[in-house]
Amino acid sequence: MKISVLTLFPDYFQSLIGTSIIKRAYEKDLFSFETIDFRTFTKEKHGHVDDTPYGGGAGMLLMCQPILDALASIRTEDSTVILLSPQGKTFNQQMAEKLALRSHLIFICGHYEGFDERIRDYADVQISLGDFVLTGGEPACAVMCDAILRLVPGVIKADSSADDSFSSGLLEYPQYTRPEVYDGKRVPEVLLSGHHAKIAAWRHEQALINTARHRPDLLENKELSASDQKIVDDILKNKN
Amino acid sequence: MKISVLTLFPDYFQSLIGTSIIKRAYEKDLFSFETIDFRTFTKEKHGHVDDTPYGGGAGMLLMCQPILDALASIRTEDSTVILLSPQGKTFNQQMAEKLALRSHLIFICGHYEGFDERIRDYADVQISLGDFVLTGGEPACAVMCDAILRLVPGVIKADSSADDSFSSGLLEYPQYTRPEVYDGKRVPEVLLSGHHAKIAAWRHEQALINTARHRPDLLENKELSASDQKIVDDILKNKN
Repeated sequence: MKISVLTLFPDYFQSLIGTSIIKRAYEKDLFSFETIDFRTFTKEKHGHVDDTPYGGGAGMLLMCQPILDALASIRTEDSTVILLSPQGKTFNQQMAEKLALRSHLIFICGHYEGFDERIRDYADVQISLGDFVLTGGEPACAVMCDAILRLVPGVIKADSSADDSFSSGLLEYPQYTRPEVYDGKRVPEVLLSGHHAKIAAWRHEQALINTARHRPDLLENKELSASDQKIVDDILKNKN
Repeated sequence: MKISVLTLFPDYFQSLIGTSIIKRAYEKDLFSFETIDFRTFTKEKHGHVDDTPYGGGAGMLLMCQPILDALASIRTEDSTVILLSPQGKTFNQQMAEKLALRSHLIFICGHYEGFDERIRDYADVQISLGDFVLTGGEPACAVMCDAILRLVPGVIKADSSADDSFSSGLLEYPQYTRPEVYDGKRVPEVLLSGHHAKIAAWRHEQALINTARHRPDLLENKELSASDQKIVDDILKNKN
């Protein structure tokens, strides 16, 4: 897996590849990562990469030439070019899982007011991180890279990701660690019982309850057993 | 506006406050920002902040004591304590606008497998960035801080944010800058006309078309004029 990021702020990504789990994986060469400052590709005087919009309006737009020349310099048949844009599909775990299987991802990070519309034609896919506005694409890109890179084999322990929220289509069950009582709040008895089957059943039920209570939309297209469906129905009935 | 982030990886946030627009605002003291490494609050030997889950399972959980003692050391009546969690409400622009009005935001960033369930009781609000899994809360927190801080008065030019995607409830209209023709692709004639009313009408129509085509869900609770509704209906009819 190789990730290339086209950005005006290559230093932004030092945090991503210099912290914790992703840092260790990067140092072990489990993936390669590069940033390309597309300002170095501009043919404009003074290193300009943006200009005013046709038709007037506030702010500056990123021009086609610097970004698209930078893109052309690294794109191969194996590349998947991702444009970060509010018009894109909303990023989610299924998308992260698909992208983690590709050999070369190229992210184009906009900045300032936006970019020339014609740049969209050169992307394979447009992705949005969510329904909010950022100063640039960099923070969103760092999030997507983190979500994708942790799925690259060897980055996290194999058994750690199976129980993650969203991976199973459910939110996680509640977890507790020492001490048994904190500020008057006790760990549920079942977790202290040592009875593995009961613990597994409790956790599954709690994950269902959490999901029904906080994210019932995640259950909409999910096939549930009759007993699971009853748990969900009871929660939803009490909610309304 | 003050933001405090409880994290095991304070350096992660150097990118946020050290880049571009947010950097300039930070240097102008338009907001204050601090990170608190809750590892420094632990009463465990060797600086431990995590332990194995009761009931068994993979990975380690963040313990109550270090995080909650760190929180208690900075929380005041004016603080809004935000826990980043998949169970939370999904972050969006309306949430960013509300949070930008608060005087003190405290973010709690988890890491590793998760945190002791009892920590939730000390948060004012739980927020999720989206339906995906990260190595820790830090990248998500940096995104939320960016979205919130750009709304703090003076951080971006006042007229820049009004036309943003999501602020008006619509996606943005297409924008173009020089040259008029790039790789055979022309800027739409209307934008070169100098006719301000026609340009404004075209942009409004294009924003509607973009939204109907890519994010029809954004239009569901929106009141539209009869002519706007017709534009939207035509798009949706052709889509199906």
